Amino acid sequence: MFNLYWADEGGLPAGDRGAAYGDGLFETIRMYGGRGVLISRHLDRMARDAGRLGIPITLMELRKACTAAVSRYARRYATKERDGSWVLKLTLTRGEGGRGYQPSAGIRPNLIVSASPMPAPPASSGVVADFSRVPLTVNPLLTGIKSLNRLEQVMAAREIEGELFEVIMADSTGNLVEGTRTNLLVKVLDGWVTPPVKSLAVAGILRQWLLERLRARGEPVVERAVSIGDVMGSDCRGLYLLNSVIGIVPVGRLAGQDLPVDNGLATIFNPLELLE
Amino acid sequence: MFNLYWADEGGLPAGDRGAAYGDGLFETIRMYGGRGVLISRHLDRMARDAGRLGIPITLMELRKACTAAVSRYARRYATKERDGSWVLKLTLTRGEGGRGYQPSAGIRPNLIVSASPMPAPPASSGVVADFSRVPLTVNPLLTGIKSLNRLEQVMAAREIEGELFEVIMADSTGNLVEGTRTNLLVKVLDGWVTPPVKSLAVAGILRQWLLERLRARGEPVVERAVSIGDVMGSDCRGLYLLNSVIGIVPVGRLAGQDLPVDNGLATIFNPLELLE
Repeated sequence: MFNLYWADEGGLPAGDRGAAYGDGLFETIRMYGGRGVLISRHLDRMARDAGRLGIPITLMELRKACTAAVSRYARRYATKERDGSWVLKLTLTRGEGGRGYQPSAGIRPNLIVSASPMPAPPASSGVVADFSRVPLTVNPLLTGIKSLNRLEQVMAAREIEGELFEVIMADSTGNLVEGTRTNLLVKVLDGWVTPPVKSLAVAGILRQWLLERLRARGEPVVERAVSIGDVMGSDCRGLYLLNSVIGIVPVGRLAGQDLPVDNGLATIFNPLELLE
Repeated sequence: MFNLYWADEGGLPAGDRGAAYGDGLFETIRMYGGRGVLISRHLDRMARDAGRLGIPITLMELRKACTAAVSRYARRYATKERDGSWVLKLTLTRGEGGRGYQPSAGIRPNLIVSASPMPAPPASSGVVADFSRVPLTVNPLLTGIKSLNRLEQVMAAREIEGELFEVIMADSTGNLVEGTRTNLLVKVLDGWVTPPVKSLAVAGILRQWLLERLRARGEPVVERAVSIGDVMGSDCRGLYLLNSVIGIVPVGRLAGQDLPVDNGLATIFNPLELLE
C-alpha cells in the first residue's frame, strides 16, 4: 500500500524522505490519451528499482495509479499540436519517518503523480550538443536507477543555453556516459556502440528497446566505454540522444564540430506503434 | 528573497526541485533555547555551498529564519532530559520551476524549517560500528556539500541495526571516507589522521572546528586517505565519529574488533561553550 498525492493538489508532507534525501525514484512517460509509450517497461523498471532500494510497491499498484492518472490528467494536458500526447510523471518515495537517514520499518511509500504538456519536438535535422564540465559519478550499487538524486544532472543542465539542446557528461576517466536526460548511441563503421548498463546513471527505457530492435534486425551493437574520439573522430557515422519522451534525436553539431546526420534511425521509433 | 515553509504546517509544493531532484542542501543544528552550537559555521556553510550550487540566499536571510524558528520551536522541542536542547533543521531548495533538470532563471528558493527533540547521547564508553557494504561516490564538483542527494547514506543507514551505532563507508579504492552521518578522526601514535576535505561527501562543522582546536593545541593533524589498516592495525590509538549534533563519539568496537577508547577527546568539545 502507498499514499497517493496528486501534484496539482499540492501539499507534499514536509517530512517526505524524497524531499529530505532524494530517497526515491521516478518515471516520465509519453502518453497518448489513455495509453502510454512502452509504459510496461517504465512500470517494470520502477517496480524493479524500487525493490533494489527496498521500497515496497507492486506493479499492480503502479498500474492502478496510472489508470487514475489518465482519468485525471489526459484531457487536461493533451494538446492538438502534439497529436493528443501528454507526459505522465510518477515519483515514488520511501515515505515519511525514520531517524535521520535510517528509515523506520514498515513505512508506507508516497507516490506523487503529476502531468505536463508534451514538449515541442527537437529539429530532426540534428541538434547542437556540447561536453559538460560537470563530471558524472555513478554509485555501483545504484547504477541505472532513475533515483531522485539528480543534482549532478541539474548542475550540468544549467550549462544548457542558447541553441544547445544537451550536454554530455563523462566519468572520472573521461569516458562519455550520457546526457543530462538522454542516453547515447554512436553509429560507427561496422554497427552501433553505446556505454554499458553498469556505467549508466540512468538505464533508459528507449535505449534498451532500441538495442533490442537493432539486434533483432541483425545490426551489430556493442556495449562498451565510449571515448571522445569515438564521437569526434572520423569513424563516427552519427551520434544519437535517446529519451523515451522526446525520442531519438540526432546530434548535428557537437562541441563546434559538425557530425553526420542520418535520419534512418529516427524512423525505427514510432511512438504510435508502441502504445500500450 | 526566499519562500519560507514551516515543516509543522506541512504542504511542500509538489513541484519543489528539492523533492524532484534533491536540488538543494540542508543543515542540522544543535540548539539550547535560543542559541545554537557553532551556528555561525553552519549558516556560513549553507550560504557558501548554496552559492556553489547557484542558489541565491544571504547569510542575513538565514539568520532571520533562525530567529523566527527559535520563537516557533524552542519551547516546543526543548526537553529537560537534554538540558533544554533541541535540533533545528534548515532545508534550502532551488525552488519551483524549470524544464526538467534545467532550472528557470530567477526562481525563488524554498527554505523549509523544521525541528526535533535532541536525541539520546551515545555511550561515552564507545559505540559499536562496522564497515558498510555501500560504496561512497563523491562528485568532484560537489565535494563536502550537505546536499539533498543522500541516497547512498540512506542505503548504508539501512544496515544499522541492533547494537550498531554507525557504518563506515569507503570509496571505490577502499579508503575509508566517512560514516553515514559522521566524519572520521583517527588517533595514531604521533597525532591525528582524517580524510581530506576533497574526498568528503559532507565536510562536517564539528570536524573543521576540532581540527582547528587540535592544531591550536599543537597536536599534529594530517589530512590524508585513511585505509582499513589505519583503524584496524596496531598503530590505531582510537577512532572517533564526529557529528555536530551528537558530538565526538569514540568507537569501542569496529567490525568485531575492540578499539582503544580514550575519553580525553570528548572533553575538548563542550557544546555549552560554543553557543552563539
